[in-house]
Amino acid sequence: MSADDCLFCKMVAGQIPVTKVYEDDVILAFLDIGPISDGHTLVIPKQHYEQLHDCPAELLAQIASRLGKIAGAVSSAMNSDGYNVLCNNGRAAGQVINHLHFHIISRNNGDGLLSRWPSYKYKAGQIESIAARICELL
Amino acid sequence: MSADDCLFCKMVAGQIPVTKVYEDDVILAFLDIGPISDGHTLVIPKQHYEQLHDCPAELLAQIASRLGKIAGAVSSAMNSDGYNVLCNNGRAAGQVINHLHFHIISRNNGDGLLSRWPSYKYKAGQIESIAARICELL
Repeated sequence: MSADDCLFCKMVAGQIPVTKVYEDDVILAFLDIGPISDGHTLVIPKQHYEQLHDCPAELLAQIASRLGKIAGAVSSAMNSDGYNVLCNNGRAAGQVINHLHFHIISRNNGDGLLSRWPSYKYKAGQIESIAARICELL
Repeated sequence: MSADDCLFCKMVAGQIPVTKVYEDDVILAFLDIGPISDGHTLVIPKQHYEQLHDCPAELLAQIASRLGKIAGAVSSAMNSDGYNVLCNNGRAAGQVINHLHFHIISRNNGDGLLSRWPSYKYKAGQIESIAARICELL
């Protein structure tokens, strides 16, 4: 399953070159050419799915079973102080290519990346009503 | 496997109340009490592992196989324009509780969350040398 006009599907097919760090029958992992930190890696399933909730549970399991090892390698290779694994879904969430992908972003103390985190508190009763709306869909 | 002084292990054990949205034998999903958007959900394995690369591949697979459905429900319930799934590993990456967890963050157009993304380009030869360092560890 691939999409004709998808940049990542073309990378999987070898039609667009990538700087590969890992590949097997399920996933391709390569360096982002517009990194936000050195070693910024993208992990994608070879099959085309747009977003996380579109992707079959079995395939998500296969991707995730490989993510820990790759993230550990990126973090160690970069001598980082930590790392983020980030999956953006939809333009509003920062997704630019409509093919499911996981960013592995090596972090150093005080680098200030992804730093807008304006945590707040719910009003009385709000958290319960939101949880109920989510539970209805699960 | 649990850690005596871990807040999330106490939540799993029922010693600290949570606003639960989903639970089974493998994971617990509940609303973050300090959300950055309404419906901000945390998904944690019941077993205690600190970071993604510490967690066995089989358990990561089990967690991820449940993530898509939960993320879809959060996003739909909040009528969002998108969502992020984010796993912070280490203080430098924003991890506050040392028990592996995935944030599901519902997003709306223009909300400005997680917005510091200072993308740059590698110098000549740099991307290949970085990839080689990562590949050595895989």
